[in-house]
Amino acid sequence: MSEHQHDEFSIIDQLFKPLAGLAKEARGLIDDVAVIAADSHHDLVISTDAMVAGIHFFENDPLDLVARKLMRVNLSDIIAKGAIPYGYTLVTAWPRGTTYSEKQDFVRGLKIEQDRFGLDLFGGDTVSTYGPLHVSMTIFGRVPPGRALSRLGARPGDKLLVSGYIGQGYLGLKALQGEFLGVTHADENDIISAYHLPEIRPDLAVCVRDHARASMDISDGLLADADHMARANKIMIRIDLNKVPTSLAARTAMGAGLSPVELVTGGDDYQILCAADDAGARALVMSGFYEIGTCLGLSDDTPAGAELWADGRRIDVATKGYSHPL
Amino acid sequence: MSEHQHDEFSIIDQLFKPLAGLAKEARGLIDDVAVIAADSHHDLVISTDAMVAGIHFFENDPLDLVARKLMRVNLSDIIAKGAIPYGYTLVTAWPRGTTYSEKQDFVRGLKIEQDRFGLDLFGGDTVSTYGPLHVSMTIFGRVPPGRALSRLGARPGDKLLVSGYIGQGYLGLKALQGEFLGVTHADENDIISAYHLPEIRPDLAVCVRDHARASMDISDGLLADADHMARANKIMIRIDLNKVPTSLAARTAMGAGLSPVELVTGGDDYQILCAADDAGARALVMSGFYEIGTCLGLSDDTPAGAELWADGRRIDVATKGYSHPL
Repeated sequence: MSEHQHDEFSIIDQLFKPLAGLAKEARGLIDDVAVIAADSHHDLVISTDAMVAGIHFFENDPLDLVARKLMRVNLSDIIAKGAIPYGYTLVTAWPRGTTYSEKQDFVRGLKIEQDRFGLDLFGGDTVSTYGPLHVSMTIFGRVPPGRALSRLGARPGDKLLVSGYIGQGYLGLKALQGEFLGVTHADENDIISAYHLPEIRPDLAVCVRDHARASMDISDGLLADADHMARANKIMIRIDLNKVPTSLAARTAMGAGLSPVELVTGGDDYQILCAADDAGARALVMSGFYEIGTCLGLSDDTPAGAELWADGRRIDVATKGYSHPL
Repeated sequence: MSEHQHDEFSIIDQLFKPLAGLAKEARGLIDDVAVIAADSHHDLVISTDAMVAGIHFFENDPLDLVARKLMRVNLSDIIAKGAIPYGYTLVTAWPRGTTYSEKQDFVRGLKIEQDRFGLDLFGGDTVSTYGPLHVSMTIFGRVPPGRALSRLGARPGDKLLVSGYIGQGYLGLKALQGEFLGVTHADENDIISAYHLPEIRPDLAVCVRDHARASMDISDGLLADADHMARANKIMIRIDLNKVPTSLAARTAMGAGLSPVELVTGGDDYQILCAADDAGARALVMSGFYEIGTCLGLSDDTPAGAELWADGRRIDVATKGYSHPL
């Protein structure tokens, strides 16, 4: 089950977890995905994401981009678990006054992404609403039996890795909000594009499945999601801020005054965050992953969690991740 | 894929069907459910339903009842396909100002139904919205391989059957809207309860799977859904209005002036509608189904569709089913 708001964590913990009971498919609702044992060749990995206009995207965003982001955000969970996506169901609640042409735009966006990533629409529901546009998608992916990765499994001594640049989506959001970042026009296009269409790498699914011990996608921000991973595994994760990969645009923006801490707490990354032993980490780095930190055991009085370090010192961070405004 | 509004039919036909392509899981999006081949013992039957406050339920309906109806409406699809439900995923978009206690009510409703029907929560997403409450659920059911029923498969000569009283939910809605029906207080409680909590019969899943050739649940109204079945099978379905089973409350309301046509076009029944050959029909009647009509071949100039007959004459019906108000 996904967690999009800080106070939603307690809703999931207190209200929804009892509904999952001991069902192995639910993974205790801590792992973004459900896993259903299917046949002798596959388990099904299932991820659901909902997006609401005015909360998860701008009211006037073109609907083809909304559709494409919905699919990518959701694919991100599937890929991070080492699964290969192949189909999806869709729920759309259209506000009154949505035109046929706007619905066509939305469908065109879906078509682009499903052709690119090899999915078909399996079903769903389409309704009307008096409120803002609400879209949600459930993606089905396949892994060999028992091989779906979880955020559980990281151990003290493991390396922490990410699949690509951190902060691109956050910078894109800042650019869309008109904030001065000092970047070139081309870089601005790149970061806005990263916000609308996060980069998704299905080619990494098998690699991460073969070499990582624990894996999840980064949606709430690198530090917040590392914190979730650390707590789930009852370990400490130490991130070296100087090793976090950033684009030229991000470094330019930092030169213009943007705090590097903002980049690792901003959210909307949709990169893979994983933990691996030394051999696994070497293989992942060979595939383009970046090693950014270490998993540590807990000493007597340290609680589980993720810390940000730079130049041998711990950085005090007020807010670990992004909360949606509501 | 479900169809909740008349103009949504064309949206599904024109926009969504191309996204399903030839994926066998999608069943051409005409069958309310998706079917995923799982293992040598099971196929997965998957049904998704969305409900929006102000459209599918009243804004001030208690949230435990909303949760319970959401699950039953969705179970209805699974049962009608001959599948045994066992888990679900959930999307909730809470309006601002929803209290923790209201969320508890919603979860309490889910708990009652999942315990009753043997389901566990597998996952989902929970977000906030500036609009009305939006809830959607995807239920997973299992059938033996290749045995999931479809609305396709009815043939000329088959009997048409329903699993129980028609019009109970519609009458409940009328009662809630303050309409005079002339029924007793006890009957009024029954029909209002049928509207909030349609009767779901998982015990009929195996029976319908063993004896029906085509099956679907009734959500848009008996006549409208029989019409869908007829068109999908390119046949004529003739319903004998005098054979449609109705409760004492319904007969009282008809005595007070309610048209019987309203009952078969009102919607919100969630009974099983199925077609079976003579032997199958006999078995289904033994299990409590009611035989209400016949499947006929098309002559040269009659289009596929369902007709309502009574006393040897065809009844002209202006509107075949319910459209949600938007």
